[in-house]
Amino acid sequence: MPSSLINGQPGHAIDLHDRGLQYGDGLFSTLAVRDGRPQLWEQHIGRLREDCGRLRLAPFDASQLRAEADALCTGIARGVLKILLTRGPGARGYRFDAAAPGTRILTLAPVPEYPVQHYRDGVAIRICTTRLGVNPALAGIKHLNRLEQVLARAEWDDAEIAEGLMRDVHGHIVEGTMSNLFLVRNGALLTPRLDECGVAGVMRATIIAWAQTSGISVMERHVDDGDLGRADEVFLCNSLIGVWPVRRVDGFTWRSGPLTARIAAAIGAFSLMPETPRLDFAQDTDGSN
Amino acid sequence: MPSSLINGQPGHAIDLHDRGLQYGDGLFSTLAVRDGRPQLWEQHIGRLREDCGRLRLAPFDASQLRAEADALCTGIARGVLKILLTRGPGARGYRFDAAAPGTRILTLAPVPEYPVQHYRDGVAIRICTTRLGVNPALAGIKHLNRLEQVLARAEWDDAEIAEGLMRDVHGHIVEGTMSNLFLVRNGALLTPRLDECGVAGVMRATIIAWAQTSGISVMERHVDDGDLGRADEVFLCNSLIGVWPVRRVDGFTWRSGPLTARIAAAIGAFSLMPETPRLDFAQDTDGSN
Repeated sequence: MPSSLINGQPGHAIDLHDRGLQYGDGLFSTLAVRDGRPQLWEQHIGRLREDCGRLRLAPFDASQLRAEADALCTGIARGVLKILLTRGPGARGYRFDAAAPGTRILTLAPVPEYPVQHYRDGVAIRICTTRLGVNPALAGIKHLNRLEQVLARAEWDDAEIAEGLMRDVHGHIVEGTMSNLFLVRNGALLTPRLDECGVAGVMRATIIAWAQTSGISVMERHVDDGDLGRADEVFLCNSLIGVWPVRRVDGFTWRSGPLTARIAAAIGAFSLMPETPRLDFAQDTDGSN
Repeated sequence: MPSSLINGQPGHAIDLHDRGLQYGDGLFSTLAVRDGRPQLWEQHIGRLREDCGRLRLAPFDASQLRAEADALCTGIARGVLKILLTRGPGARGYRFDAAAPGTRILTLAPVPEYPVQHYRDGVAIRICTTRLGVNPALAGIKHLNRLEQVLARAEWDDAEIAEGLMRDVHGHIVEGTMSNLFLVRNGALLTPRLDECGVAGVMRATIIAWAQTSGISVMERHVDDGDLGRADEVFLCNSLIGVWPVRRVDGFTWRSGPLTARIAAAIGAFSLMPETPRLDFAQDTDGSN
């Protein structure tokens, strides 16, 4: 069983002239694999399609992508599937040939070992000094220009710290290095707006969609330290971890609360969360726990 | 004769797990090759060393890099040498192993065919709508996160337009997609400051150093449309083109002027400029033309 497919062929090497390497000219998405199936497939494909449009990358064939994903994931109980699309090999210079075929890379990786306490007791996190630059043209896209996240993640080496929050250059709190952020206040959800920077995560969108069908208000706006101070619950999410309650960041502490637990129960089965009761996501619209 | 060396070995393929591809986690520099020799070598090495430090990339062995550059460039009358350094292959996730070896890629490419009129008559350029995001942590570094330049260069397809200027998100004019910008006003040089975004080009630094030893004032500050309107001469530079006088951008027009010509004469021999009289740069400190 290959662990990587490059344009449909098993392999581990790409052309050094690929614009993904030369300029970070591409994007990616990371999916949880459970019981041989990539989770939230349609949502990931939808975001990839939208991001390809914004970067003017060649459209991809979703059924071909699915066939390749299935070839990698069949028989895999739990794993991580990464889909990476680039503008493909090119001549020197930023100018690209819109008709040139891109490069399609699928890789299957083992499940990261997240401590079960992260889910049960919540995580301690930090606020990074590395900032997110502001650029609406790239905001929200999970593109390959990730140096800000690389530098932010290099700020700490303490295994007790599970994640770092990043501010934008104006000081707003935007997201974690690898996760999106939600605050709970009076039973409503607040999450940072991502129109100037940040990654619009598929799990973030899934949680927003769930809340909207569950009668829970979701506000997307700038988030500052005062919002952290006023929050009743705080949690992080992404497609792999599912939901991590936050118990501490700098001077603020929280207990894991009821809405976080309810959301974790609703979306956990689509992530690599351990021991999550499988709820029927589509039917969970009656507000029950 | 190989055209590429990867960690010293001829080849054209890199590991798909290389962080240069996965996250744009690396940097590059592009050098003019003349008569078998990469030009402004020490300046390029100096910038690579500084940029490696800022990104916490592993230090490189400059003599090894030079030996590899010589292996590619010997016997080449004119060419383009690109040095690309990445953090090397890594496990999934933004966190990196500071002790892991990086990847070192040198490629030799043919000379781009720039029309001789660009040098003689000046170039017509445009102002791009794609903006540069602001992030002091990455400003100045010639790193692999170049999506802004890719999107800006995709804005036009008119061969009459040689380059596009980019504004930052505040509206300041910062640089071209592949070049730095200088304005001349009353015999002094003005060039955009690069402490919030932009690439600190080696040719830009070479011109600033030349001006300082030639008694010509150089100011680095924010540049706006009003500065363009007041400029007596405008030119673009990089390590390959040398100097292109600008004759038109949007509503503004200029004739090629004396300071631009003098600078072109002083630095042309270190670039791929055609028919440039070879001046001795190091000794050109007496203000003579």
